[in-house]
Amino acid sequence: MSTEKIPYKIFLSEEELPRRWYNVRADMKKKPAPLLDPATGKPCTPEQLSAVFCDELVKQELNETDPYIDIPEPIIDFYRMFRPSPLIRAYCLEKKLDTPAKIYYKFEGNNTSGSHKLNSAIAQAYYAKAQGLKGVTTETGAGQWGTALSMACSYFELDCRVYMVKVSYEQKPFRREVMRTYGAKVTPSPSDTTDVGRRILAEFPGTNGSLGCAISEAVEAAVSTPGYRYVLGSVLSQVLLHQSVIGLEAKAALDKYGVKPDIIIGCAGGGSNLGGLISPFMGEKLRGEADYRFIAVEPASCPSLTRGKYAYDFCDTGKVCPLQKMYTLGSGFMPSPNHAGGLRYHGMSSILSELYDQGLMEARSVEQTSVFEAAEQFARVEGILPAPESSHAIRAAIDEALKCKETGEEKTILFGLTGTGYFDMYAYEAYNNGTMTDYIPTDEEIAASLAKLPHIG
Amino acid sequence: MSTEKIPYKIFLSEEELPRRWYNVRADMKKKPAPLLDPATGKPCTPEQLSAVFCDELVKQELNETDPYIDIPEPIIDFYRMFRPSPLIRAYCLEKKLDTPAKIYYKFEGNNTSGSHKLNSAIAQAYYAKAQGLKGVTTETGAGQWGTALSMACSYFELDCRVYMVKVSYEQKPFRREVMRTYGAKVTPSPSDTTDVGRRILAEFPGTNGSLGCAISEAVEAAVSTPGYRYVLGSVLSQVLLHQSVIGLEAKAALDKYGVKPDIIIGCAGGGSNLGGLISPFMGEKLRGEADYRFIAVEPASCPSLTRGKYAYDFCDTGKVCPLQKMYTLGSGFMPSPNHAGGLRYHGMSSILSELYDQGLMEARSVEQTSVFEAAEQFARVEGILPAPESSHAIRAAIDEALKCKETGEEKTILFGLTGTGYFDMYAYEAYNNGTMTDYIPTDEEIAASLAKLPHIG
Repeated sequence: MSTEKIPYKIFLSEEELPRRWYNVRADMKKKPAPLLDPATGKPCTPEQLSAVFCDELVKQELNETDPYIDIPEPIIDFYRMFRPSPLIRAYCLEKKLDTPAKIYYKFEGNNTSGSHKLNSAIAQAYYAKAQGLKGVTTETGAGQWGTALSMACSYFELDCRVYMVKVSYEQKPFRREVMRTYGAKVTPSPSDTTDVGRRILAEFPGTNGSLGCAISEAVEAAVSTPGYRYVLGSVLSQVLLHQSVIGLEAKAALDKYGVKPDIIIGCAGGGSNLGGLISPFMGEKLRGEADYRFIAVEPASCPSLTRGKYAYDFCDTGKVCPLQKMYTLGSGFMPSPNHAGGLRYHGMSSILSELYDQGLMEARSVEQTSVFEAAEQFARVEGILPAPESSHAIRAAIDEALKCKETGEEKTILFGLTGTGYFDMYAYEAYNNGTMTDYIPTDEEIAASLAKLPHIG
Repeated sequence: MSTEKIPYKIFLSEEELPRRWYNVRADMKKKPAPLLDPATGKPCTPEQLSAVFCDELVKQELNETDPYIDIPEPIIDFYRMFRPSPLIRAYCLEKKLDTPAKIYYKFEGNNTSGSHKLNSAIAQAYYAKAQGLKGVTTETGAGQWGTALSMACSYFELDCRVYMVKVSYEQKPFRREVMRTYGAKVTPSPSDTTDVGRRILAEFPGTNGSLGCAISEAVEAAVSTPGYRYVLGSVLSQVLLHQSVIGLEAKAALDKYGVKPDIIIGCAGGGSNLGGLISPFMGEKLRGEADYRFIAVEPASCPSLTRGKYAYDFCDTGKVCPLQKMYTLGSGFMPSPNHAGGLRYHGMSSILSELYDQGLMEARSVEQTSVFEAAEQFARVEGILPAPESSHAIRAAIDEALKCKETGEEKTILFGLTGTGYFDMYAYEAYNNGTMTDYIPTDEEIAASLAKLPHIG
């Protein structure tokens, strides 16, 4: 333990980069429920999954027993370009809030994809390349995941086909151009390149597209093109595994200074960042070695943990993927159009869902105007313009720090700052102009969506 | 000297942050020519300059003798949020180019302003605050400097009024919104808030604005508003002084591993980044302690060093600022509208102009399609999407590395990667679509512009 003053930014050296990912399922007594084949209602076999995903990633997806999985050297080399990421002590925010709390954040935005998504993208691209594949397909909404995957594929000289929700493709051209700069083929979805796309275009000629439709197109393109597989940026357990590098680094950096967080906070959409950040800490809690409070923060407009149901559901709107047991609002749930930024997935990682169900993690929802208020406050003192998604965690961290101010407690708060908001300026503009609104779905809306859940055992 | 393998990213610790800026003028035998009052043709007095600039900054502007100037502690504290910036060994680019050259770049883009501009913005904001001023004014084109200044003013709770070229304000709203998020008041220029703005609007009602007009408005707003001063993001010697932190850190990082660069390359618009990067190395060369090749890289469409004249000229199109002796294309010179990104200033830092005139530095110009080709090549292997400005340096660095490949020489190349291109995606789009063009001004165009230089001794 170092006794020197804790710096603003704690950087681990490249030699201290984690060499193994941590698989939190290995320490869970009750494991997440298995993926089911929607046709038979039986657990998916590795063979079934291998038609869609790379072989090694299928193994990782199904691996519930090995606590550590070696990170291949070529992935480590890529990580060196932007990792270890800094763990930042928010001295300026603490001062501004006048709180006795000590606030740290793990910043994942210092890479061109602008978020933590790159941690898993490079892993998935690597395994695709190692399997001798020609390329991968995926979907993207606003483009954060698609950008990360494009960078990863470019590095390994792998074809990358991204189905981008049409309205984003047309109205938010910047991320599209980043992807193209990295050599990706970006197709507005729905498109005439797939059966499902043509079907949807025939039925709804003027459609703006949706993430569900883009997933269906990407999966169809992968399974119908020799040498291709489909990859996904969140929700899956393999993604949480790769993202554990966030938590492992954060823990190593805090350990250096003998700091133990009381509260660990992350935003939650599909759960990739939150799961990655908390994994090694959760492992200690599961093994009875330490205790922490974990808080998942989700948008009030898409509250899967706080208002959803723990049940089997489709992972995609097109219902082509396996069924997963998770907290869900129903695969047909669409957040209000006024919802800015990501975190708009109807369900949640099966690992996080199970941990939440076991009472090992808390969850709360926050409204977006209060999220942007926190984002602006943070940006002005910490010098980083945060992504709307990340700002959900900032909101909760500020709220906890203000509670400490009231009680005088010197709690240590760690949160995940997943990325930057440089491609989200329309949302900031709405906030700056005072035209941003909130929307909380009614109980009836959620009940109507949940009524369409598949009927499984 | 460390004998371990040089990592991808060399990070200095916060304790190693430079505590003093380096003033290269102190080591120049022949100093840059003084600023002149356009009304009298005589050197500007500190009193004259203090009407426009903060007192302490006037002292720095005129200080040709002190080699080192202490960095005030509050500026150091702000620097801690994003400095020391990484010095990166471009292992992946070297491999891609298959060159024996060793390439390093000092990356200044890991902060929300997205560039090195923040290094001087925070200094200028600090001195304004320390003088008890209420606020500062400035102009911005695409918004890089305005963003940096907004962040700095927000930190010191200083009013910030930015006059933004109207066409950028309307067509590139993203940086405008970043500035507003940091609390700046952003006004499209020309505006009805100043005499000069009203005059121009009356004469040219449909004008898109220009940087020259925005400077004139910002200066007028500063001198006519009690408690305000004007600040500028490049060209001035005080700015090069603040930016010397780039070179000081780069040198300290290289020294740690016993590395001595053979060639040091930077893009050059007004000269703030290039001057900052090379200053401490140039100091060694001026003192006869070491030798380096320095290469300034400018756009072929705005070639002040390579095709301009070394003469006194106006610093601004509105002719309200002092006269400066510099390499210039004439204050009325406008780069072709097809020119993407910055580096569009008609003149050059007086320090760099004098060093170039003395033969201590080389200069070359490059065309923008070849710049974007280098940018894309760099992005795909190094994982950072560079700003168009920075990519001029990348172009030259790649060219030098390819020469080494031909000759087999293992030269060490250092270049400045000033920032990221996240707000320049229209230019990348044009490159991706194959619609980007080049333009080289004719000799007649440049001669016509130079014919209007002021007649000074």
